[in-house]
Amino acid sequence: MKLLSIITLAAATLASATPIELKYGNESINRPLIHMTPSYGWMNDPNGLWYDAKEKLWHYYFQYNPNDSVWGLPLYWGHATSKNLTTWDQQDAAIAPLKNDSGAYSGSIVVDVNNTSGFFDNATDPRQRAVAIWTYNTPDSETQYISYSTDGGYTFINYDGNPALSNNSTQFRDPKVIWHEESQKWIMTVAKSQEFKIAIYSSPNLKNWTHESDFTKEGLLGFQYECPGLSKFSAPQSDNATYPTNSTDSTKWALFISINPGSPQGGSSTEYFIGDFNGTHFVPDFPYTSILDLGRDFYALQNFYNSPDGEVYGIGWASNWMYSNYVPTDPWRSSTSLVRKFSLEEFQANPESKLLNIKSTPVIDYDTLNFGETFSYENETFDTNNSLSYDLSKNFDGLIEFNLTYTVNGSAFGKSDFADLSLYLIGDSNSDEYLRLGFEGNAAAFFIDRGNTDVEFVKENPFFTTRMSVNNQPSRYIDSEISQYKVYGIADRNILELYFNDGSQVSTNTYFFTGGNFITEVDLEVGVDGVYQIEEFKVRQMTLKL
Amino acid sequence: MKLLSIITLAAATLASATPIELKYGNESINRPLIHMTPSYGWMNDPNGLWYDAKEKLWHYYFQYNPNDSVWGLPLYWGHATSKNLTTWDQQDAAIAPLKNDSGAYSGSIVVDVNNTSGFFDNATDPRQRAVAIWTYNTPDSETQYISYSTDGGYTFINYDGNPALSNNSTQFRDPKVIWHEESQKWIMTVAKSQEFKIAIYSSPNLKNWTHESDFTKEGLLGFQYECPGLSKFSAPQSDNATYPTNSTDSTKWALFISINPGSPQGGSSTEYFIGDFNGTHFVPDFPYTSILDLGRDFYALQNFYNSPDGEVYGIGWASNWMYSNYVPTDPWRSSTSLVRKFSLEEFQANPESKLLNIKSTPVIDYDTLNFGETFSYENETFDTNNSLSYDLSKNFDGLIEFNLTYTVNGSAFGKSDFADLSLYLIGDSNSDEYLRLGFEGNAAAFFIDRGNTDVEFVKENPFFTTRMSVNNQPSRYIDSEISQYKVYGIADRNILELYFNDGSQVSTNTYFFTGGNFITEVDLEVGVDGVYQIEEFKVRQMTLKL
Repeated sequence: MKLLSIITLAAATLASATPIELKYGNESINRPLIHMTPSYGWMNDPNGLWYDAKEKLWHYYFQYNPNDSVWGLPLYWGHATSKNLTTWDQQDAAIAPLKNDSGAYSGSIVVDVNNTSGFFDNATDPRQRAVAIWTYNTPDSETQYISYSTDGGYTFINYDGNPALSNNSTQFRDPKVIWHEESQKWIMTVAKSQEFKIAIYSSPNLKNWTHESDFTKEGLLGFQYECPGLSKFSAPQSDNATYPTNSTDSTKWALFISINPGSPQGGSSTEYFIGDFNGTHFVPDFPYTSILDLGRDFYALQNFYNSPDGEVYGIGWASNWMYSNYVPTDPWRSSTSLVRKFSLEEFQANPESKLLNIKSTPVIDYDTLNFGETFSYENETFDTNNSLSYDLSKNFDGLIEFNLTYTVNGSAFGKSDFADLSLYLIGDSNSDEYLRLGFEGNAAAFFIDRGNTDVEFVKENPFFTTRMSVNNQPSRYIDSEISQYKVYGIADRNILELYFNDGSQVSTNTYFFTGGNFITEVDLEVGVDGVYQIEEFKVRQMTLKL
Repeated sequence: MKLLSIITLAAATLASATPIELKYGNESINRPLIHMTPSYGWMNDPNGLWYDAKEKLWHYYFQYNPNDSVWGLPLYWGHATSKNLTTWDQQDAAIAPLKNDSGAYSGSIVVDVNNTSGFFDNATDPRQRAVAIWTYNTPDSETQYISYSTDGGYTFINYDGNPALSNNSTQFRDPKVIWHEESQKWIMTVAKSQEFKIAIYSSPNLKNWTHESDFTKEGLLGFQYECPGLSKFSAPQSDNATYPTNSTDSTKWALFISINPGSPQGGSSTEYFIGDFNGTHFVPDFPYTSILDLGRDFYALQNFYNSPDGEVYGIGWASNWMYSNYVPTDPWRSSTSLVRKFSLEEFQANPESKLLNIKSTPVIDYDTLNFGETFSYENETFDTNNSLSYDLSKNFDGLIEFNLTYTVNGSAFGKSDFADLSLYLIGDSNSDEYLRLGFEGNAAAFFIDRGNTDVEFVKENPFFTTRMSVNNQPSRYIDSEISQYKVYGIADRNILELYFNDGSQVSTNTYFFTGGNFITEVDLEVGVDGVYQIEEFKVRQMTLKL
């Protein structure tokens, strides 16, 4: 890679990041700053996400093996809290399995404000009446347990009537419960995983559950269904909606299902369907499926219960079962995605069709961060003679974000031209380690290459796909030849999240550089002339406030 | 890669392969032997597949740019014929566009035995009354043209009433026509690509078409739908069918749709739905989608009209639009898949569920081939002390097949073990170029790594995914811990086809080694002890008979 540096700015020197207390093993480094990781041990699915309106505190639980940095039993609910959805304080594990050969598997938390369960008395503020509904996995069965907390979600007491729901099955898990206002009932979605069914149950009290319907064999099946969830959205305002509208209100529902293994990208992913839910049945508007995050590292999405503004916020597990137990981090494994706000939009899927789509917006509280200088660039056209190279401050520590808006002249390249705009995010201490991202005109797609590193895991693990892509639609058609594209990216030491066209599409992928080799150089170049115009290119380094 | 050779057999020396007449450019080499390629120029979708029962001859047409080895207008129907479905004789282009800025785009051929079209007289044998239905693409529109042949499919005469079907659209293409015996009508499936619709039309005479229904917004949408096709199958015998059965007969129908770009694997793939077709509407049994070939290089499947045994045979284009114009072959680009026979089976998708699935069987006429010695191996267990290495004959030229059947002891490895069985297919003149294939116990998946090569295209093109995988179910559960897996593979100079469990799943991927570096070494090794038993491992080199 030969880059002509025409702009080289020194970033303002700020204090270095908050020290990270972890053991550094061989290649076991580069713990993200604003993506939640456990201090020690193994993490997988997000669980029990809820908002405590009394304390104004967000709670996040997770599948947790505190004894090892690989998955294993006994499995607990780990716990972390946040005031800002950007930085997390790890708490003691909140729910333990009853036996060591067993697991407190995935589930959810609701706030039983009206004490429908009878678990609470006036000593517990109604806003803190947290009830967890989770799967108790033993060698013989998976059943749904409920537990309640009288201390604001730090410790839980098991209901003495557990299991609250059983089905004589070893493959019955991941209950996600919501309050359905219209029917004044609790609604549970739960996976009968290997039957490819999302069962819907209702309950007046969280203890007694009535089977209402099954959503079955729809979309992508993979090996099995996991981690379902129903969320209610405001439908976008549209004079000419491309989807069935509801005569009584302007809401739409989405059903999320995670599939693993056997997602077409390889391993694990989360799909969704948009439609209507009437209190007993979810009916999608159309029988097509959409993948929520097109990268390799986003699974088991769960949305928060009781967000203060009524909007939908969620978190995915930022790994993939195909290689999660081998990634070179130590003594911890796995991080979450950023918290994302989800909303509905009409997405221009191609020039002729709009589709109702879930738009993802990363939630970052910038008040928690310090910033370096923002580098920015605009010009008329960007060609092979004017590559950009930014050298960033060495005193920052591996958290950067960028905004890139560009136009592509579709008439200015031939079928055999590799008409790329490539963005290189390059390591400081070892420039052989870099991410290459970019757009290419003939594929009309955005590519992500995480294969350029000296880390053995990346070089050797054949499931760690190094090249991913996103079929990238324009954010705007300027004229018949010229289209505009936008991408926002955030790289946090070993995880890269890309949001295309303000979040119409997302791709989340982990990456691994050798220890302490943080991105401090950002290069931009094109392979052809006359094709690309950079409307905006901004890069800034960030770090945690002390 | 350190391999302990414990078995090294010399293959029988046979004559070298049929000379291949092509120009060898820089890295532009390794033309497959039994995968159809054009002698010169560019090829994409299979078109007009039919069987001439008089001549006992299979006809294959294809999207063809004879003027360049990249896609471009004018685009023709290239043509090839085969007596054996294994070797092909390229013929002159069969259908030309009317103008140079236009294309004879994809379509199909039927045999109008009863002269419903009125195009034929007694001079044309009823078995050779070929009528092509294809898309005429101009800068302004896509319409459906028909053309007929009175010379057995070598030249075509355009119908003077063309277009036979138009829709005031630039995105209306890829008609596939079949004869529907029950309704005594011709049935066309054709893509209204960017509306995500497969339109179904009927006709008594191939000239006048009536719109019957649309199959819309189902499964994976990608950017658009292309290349639809309906095929009729015998349903498997089942006492306890997991799918709706038809009271009047034991048939099932499949609807195939290709999507590009925007397949989750990246770029191009073919999905299918199984259900019933009543002459006007196709209704899938379930609204889930399946991907026919899980690799990166299988698109635009089309099935033959009028196969002599009534079974379903088809061909895919063995490339991917994300990189097809850049692959290092010259002066030709792209090959087909092997011809595959498709049938329905009940597939054990996980321990609890069977799904009706399309099984793929490669069609190879071994009478067209000469063979080297067959190397085979069986043993009790296969561990880290007894890797296998076979040195194959240097006088063969890059066509090998293998059968590998193995059992996996699921209790014999831990969560952090990379419990692989790896098969290396290694180049002769440069052993740094090899394919690594294999199974890994924790992922329970089969991996394919085509990234180990000195070819610049592979090293540089970020859309050429080097690592693919297949969620691999056992072919048989031997006991609670031990499962059996089977894979058949065929590598033909630059294309690898893998068939799992007798074709329940398939993955087709091109690969590129430097010129003349053919696979002549096959190594097998494991990363853990006590896990793998090799029930069968057979490898044989093959070449074309002179």
